[in-house]
Amino acid sequence: LNRQIANQPVTIFTLMSELARKHNAINLGQGFPDTEGPQDMVQLAANALLDGRNQYAPLTGLPELRAAVADASARFQNIPVDAESEVVVTSGATEALAASFMALIEPGDEVVLIEPLYDTYLPVVRQLGGIPRLVRLEAPDWALPREALKNAFGPRTKAIVLNTPMNPTGKVFNAEELAFIADLMRQHDSYAICDEVYEHLVFGAPHLSLMALPDMRERCIRIGSAGKSFSFTGWKVGYVTAPAPLAAVVAKAHQNLVFATAPNLQRAVAFGLNKDTAYFTQLAQEMDTKRQILSAGLARVGFGVLPCQGSYFVMADITPLANGLDDMAFSRLLTEQAGVTTIPASAFYDAQSGTPPRNLIRFAFCKREEVLIEAVARLEQWK
Amino acid sequence: LNRQIANQPVTIFTLMSELARKHNAINLGQGFPDTEGPQDMVQLAANALLDGRNQYAPLTGLPELRAAVADASARFQNIPVDAESEVVVTSGATEALAASFMALIEPGDEVVLIEPLYDTYLPVVRQLGGIPRLVRLEAPDWALPREALKNAFGPRTKAIVLNTPMNPTGKVFNAEELAFIADLMRQHDSYAICDEVYEHLVFGAPHLSLMALPDMRERCIRIGSAGKSFSFTGWKVGYVTAPAPLAAVVAKAHQNLVFATAPNLQRAVAFGLNKDTAYFTQLAQEMDTKRQILSAGLARVGFGVLPCQGSYFVMADITPLANGLDDMAFSRLLTEQAGVTTIPASAFYDAQSGTPPRNLIRFAFCKREEVLIEAVARLEQWK
Ligand SMILES: CSCCC(=O)C(=O)O
Ligand SMILES: CSCCC(=O)C(=O)O
Repeated sequence: LNRQIANQPVTIFTLMSELARKHNAINLGQGFPDTEGPQDMVQLAANALLDGRNQYAPLTGLPELRAAVADASARFQNIPVDAESEVVVTSGATEALAASFMALIEPGDEVVLIEPLYDTYLPVVRQLGGIPRLVRLEAPDWALPREALKNAFGPRTKAIVLNTPMNPTGKVFNAEELAFIADLMRQHDSYAICDEVYEHLVFGAPHLSLMALPDMRERCIRIGSAGKSFSFTGWKVGYVTAPAPLAAVVAKAHQNLVFATAPNLQRAVAFGLNKDTAYFTQLAQEMDTKRQILSAGLARVGFGVLPCQGSYFVMADITPLANGLDDMAFSRLLTEQAGVTTIPASAFYDAQSGTPPRNLIRFAFCKREEVLIEAVARLEQWK
Repeated sequence: LNRQIANQPVTIFTLMSELARKHNAINLGQGFPDTEGPQDMVQLAANALLDGRNQYAPLTGLPELRAAVADASARFQNIPVDAESEVVVTSGATEALAASFMALIEPGDEVVLIEPLYDTYLPVVRQLGGIPRLVRLEAPDWALPREALKNAFGPRTKAIVLNTPMNPTGKVFNAEELAFIADLMRQHDSYAICDEVYEHLVFGAPHLSLMALPDMRERCIRIGSAGKSFSFTGWKVGYVTAPAPLAAVVAKAHQNLVFATAPNLQRAVAFGLNKDTAYFTQLAQEMDTKRQILSAGLARVGFGVLPCQGSYFVMADITPLANGLDDMAFSRLLTEQAGVTTIPASAFYDAQSGTPPRNLIRFAFCKREEVLIEAVARLEQWK
């Protein structure tokens, strides 16, 4: 068996979700909403099943969804793209990431990754023979370590992965940070994979896409997620926008990986992307309210709550409460004793190199307000 | 960019489907039915969307679908598997194949592949650093070339891919052929990826799974497809059965590739797999009638129609009609002049080695009878 894959741990999200189920805990671990997305989208998806278009969708996606993705790219990110040649619909952002890595990486290519990071980046890069060059952001402000980033780029750099708004930190990269990264990309003639699945979930700080910067248009693969933008994480509909020559290669990787995505879900997502801007603003506002409820509550309990500008997640320093336990042990204990499940942040660091911080856990706040309030109450009680 | 992926042609299925659309031709190219699958499954899938389970499904699939896959495995293939630990639900058989290759292959591993072959096998094996060892079946009987197969196995053989019922040949491997392959696998301590997406579509000859042979249980990854078994190719729901240690690694590859599949479609497929045996028998009978209509019609037109024991496809020798054109040129001509689209069989051979036969084209007969009759009429008229 492939040793690298065989040795990869079962994803922490599954692990903690199972632990939550077992202990009947409130699951603030895995990032998914506990409410449904827009009812008109569900209804459309259901109706679409019934009207006889249940065979293979086109490889790059239904024309109506590609058009909607292109419109949204121009409308929200100020990045005009051609719906015909510059959009590829995928089975979720995870597949979009895998297809993007496959399109870019040849064995020996270096890929700059920013820690803490989402847990599929490293195994996919490594399986393709890519060499990860890790740069670490440090709590509590997660500022870009410019010197370290500069040193991570070199003659073999094929790409950087930039996740903004960032999971698990809640950081939103600002214009200067993006400009600094763009400069390095120009100097080293490299690409970027822009994981922007939380593009609509920002709280004050604006979301800026690296792809919108001068001459970055030709170097970026930008990834969006209907799961995250419409609260249907189970549908697994994602989309890639990239310059035509790059999009064509991502499409070929997608051809090998999945080929196509359910037409009825694509039609519902096209409808969703065409919604008024008000929908997206309201989604962010509601999420911000949830964030505030949870952050304030955790601070009252005694956690060192970190700032959060975007995403579904807020990080918390456990030092005041953990009695010397590390993040993993403390997470288990919170599930078992307090009935609240979180994700130990060390899971977002390379297990093969360096020492991760062991004092941080991640809370998902994409839950109903009463659930967040109950979670805080349980923590108060447990403390 | 990754040169191997960049140089991969756009899949012949997309190419020919687009050509068909452009010329308003009857599309007997890409393998998808032109009718819907069972209406009760569509209705269940639609209802399931509306009852609030639209967030991430579990990584390996909904328990009810895993149970149904395990039941069907015992019922139809006589292979008992554990629903909990030996089934992984994927986003279609294409993803199941990619995840299986990822689970098995390390750079330098050899993989035995049988030509003609499905067009994702080779690029995925090559991108993972695997070394394909190709063995070619020859028309018209597609017998297993035992000596060549024996020579293809060696100390570095990690796996063989066995597609039965076989696309594009319509061949169903018999018990002796399977026993011969099993012997080689034992001798060389290798695995098999069993692509059995057409398991229910056999016409007389029984479908036998390699995994059902003595001690093959521990060496096989068996892949099924709801798209093919229920005529919903657009849903992209596939399933893998494998011994627990192997299934666990396939699940980890799936975690990196897609993570999960839409819950409502999974629920509908679970319902489908639990249908009476009569459903599956009738599906095969109806498909056999279609096959007979098309095969007889093509013979009348003057094609050299090859035997077909299973799958959606029948191969035809174009020599009597092609006036010296090769399969690709003839396929184009048929679309443009006769209004009937097929797939040139040379697309199912490695473009990088050997010379494919240029006298065969593949017809899909998974279409309404009147469409098949009209296609034959067009060909008669054109001739
Ligand atoms: C695909 S499960 C993980 C969901 C998620 O994005 C997260 O919790 O970080
Ligand atoms: C995924 S498109 C190809 C469908 C198919 O299996 C075929 O036509 O061979």
